[in-house]
Amino acid sequence: MIEESPNPANVTLEEIARAAGVSPSTVSRILNGSARVGPAKQQAVEQAIARFNYRPNVLARSLASGKTDTIGVLTQTIASPFYAEWMRGIEDALHEPGFTPLFVSSRWSVRDEVSRIEQFIERRVDGIIVLHAQLDEQSLRDYSRRVPIVALGRSLQNSPTLAGLSINNLQGARDATQHLIDQGHREIAFIGGPHNHADAIERLDGYRMTLEEAGIAFDANRVEHADFLEAGGLAAMERLFARGQSFSAVFCANDLSAYGARLALFRHGLRVPEDVSLVGFDDLPASSYMTPPLTTVRQPTYEIGRLAAEATMQLIRKESVVLNPVPVTLVTRETTRRISPSCREGDSQG
Amino acid sequence: MIEESPNPANVTLEEIARAAGVSPSTVSRILNGSARVGPAKQQAVEQAIARFNYRPNVLARSLASGKTDTIGVLTQTIASPFYAEWMRGIEDALHEPGFTPLFVSSRWSVRDEVSRIEQFIERRVDGIIVLHAQLDEQSLRDYSRRVPIVALGRSLQNSPTLAGLSINNLQGARDATQHLIDQGHREIAFIGGPHNHADAIERLDGYRMTLEEAGIAFDANRVEHADFLEAGGLAAMERLFARGQSFSAVFCANDLSAYGARLALFRHGLRVPEDVSLVGFDDLPASSYMTPPLTTVRQPTYEIGRLAAEATMQLIRKESVVLNPVPVTLVTRETTRRISPSCREGDSQG
Repeated sequence: MIEESPNPANVTLEEIARAAGVSPSTVSRILNGSARVGPAKQQAVEQAIARFNYRPNVLARSLASGKTDTIGVLTQTIASPFYAEWMRGIEDALHEPGFTPLFVSSRWSVRDEVSRIEQFIERRVDGIIVLHAQLDEQSLRDYSRRVPIVALGRSLQNSPTLAGLSINNLQGARDATQHLIDQGHREIAFIGGPHNHADAIERLDGYRMTLEEAGIAFDANRVEHADFLEAGGLAAMERLFARGQSFSAVFCANDLSAYGARLALFRHGLRVPEDVSLVGFDDLPASSYMTPPLTTVRQPTYEIGRLAAEATMQLIRKESVVLNPVPVTLVTRETTRRISPSCREGDSQG
Repeated sequence: MIEESPNPANVTLEEIARAAGVSPSTVSRILNGSARVGPAKQQAVEQAIARFNYRPNVLARSLASGKTDTIGVLTQTIASPFYAEWMRGIEDALHEPGFTPLFVSSRWSVRDEVSRIEQFIERRVDGIIVLHAQLDEQSLRDYSRRVPIVALGRSLQNSPTLAGLSINNLQGARDATQHLIDQGHREIAFIGGPHNHADAIERLDGYRMTLEEAGIAFDANRVEHADFLEAGGLAAMERLFARGQSFSAVFCANDLSAYGARLALFRHGLRVPEDVSLVGFDDLPASSYMTPPLTTVRQPTYEIGRLAAEATMQLIRKESVVLNPVPVTLVTRETTRRISPSCREGDSQG
């Protein structure tokens, strides 16, 4: 029973085939552009398509060709100023060769990460980019046998179908800490990220290493872990105050934490940088608009997004991909200042 | 010619059908769960699926059922703290009934908006949500005949397949302006949005109307238009300074502009709120972490995202949808203060 004006979404390839008196695979080949059929058959199919108002749709074309010109982009959260810059870079770089990124989020859940990746594969995306994949390396490797995967913010053993792109966290943290030491600071507090977060661990290592090389004892009482968000940075700063910890500078393992720390300092009537110097990590767009503008370690986040998109294209084209850790640079703005030698005392009293 | 271990992406429904000795539509019905076939056929198809390592995939299932359990979400930009909150609300509300949002961006281009919407329709999404649609109402209405559409941040004549959800911009702008007047301000500058942006126009109207009701002449010299971004807010503030315009308060038509204006005030050595009061509009998450925290008009952005997702579900279920403009509320933080009566003079000197 066919209605006079059938809803296009309900017309199947088989109905078109039946109406045109050809096989479904002939319809599929015509849609696909790979058909070598006589003009009569071609015309019959075209008429059936017109009659049913059938739109040669992406799904049918994709079933036929195995190509969708889409790249699945899995982010941990859709609402993050950090991931936003990665996504913007990915999108711009995919736009030029005509790929559409489909962004989905796993909302920080490994279970959702798995199901989203499987959905992407079922939807026949041509490649997948995962931002801060939480999955273990072996699982990523297994999935990459079915579709090329680039893991952004993750160092991995690369293969012809899997590539990881990380940044040089250690160097960045060393530069930030050294900058504070060069300005005469010796009591430098550190607000880190989550205990088990790879970036956070490397940044803490860089801080500790640089202090020790400068002959400043690492003091665990000057270190607080937070969650890489504003609220966590504020709370960590409050815990440092509550311990009566002395410090003339604070290095925060990311910018969002630094925004929270900055508000805590304001609440305590401390001026930045006159009373306390402050350094972040990331250089989010908002950091230039903090008052005063934030000194921070700049990762070229947007450009890293572009690199990931380009690496994905290379994997799809079966080209070999070499990705070195992306260098970062310290951007000195207005939240750090040189302190006078008299303030340097007491660094080991903790 | 079939390889021993064919790539699942290259196996078609027809090959499975041929291997199982059934018609493609039988395979499709089995995948779809709607098959009424004998156990022998069912088993033959299952064996063929297993033999080819064929994954009953979303594309085939969707072709068969016309359902994809996906909602296309079109944003103007993937990197905006404002759209991020809408998207987070949409995602959370879709998660519960098991829908996956596919986020794509039109990068502020009407042409891309059209092509993205058409891609969504070809991909058979079950519904579309457009954030700040730039398309004219008639085009949205035409597309909505093919798939239900909710336009977020847009007031529209609703239909059974199209709904618009806007906020009460006028009320918000009136509340912000009245708050400043109540605190004794009479020289209130306004940093608006783009000239042709509906939200920006309504917020300017609210500002103007409230001034006039309070007997304060509207002065076009105290109004600057900007782009709803930090850089524009900063530049607009600089233009006000360059004109030698006097003001004791600034109302910015969105929070991002207020962040830029705040930095311009800092550059000019003016304290907020001791020297100048500042009000924004939106209440982005970052506004609570500005120093000092920003007084602003709160739109319940996340909740609006949820509402849009729920309205989309209702349209899909063919339920009627009633959406009134969402009310907004002034959140008084620390960037506004009462000024002494002696400062009130000279409001008409420009």
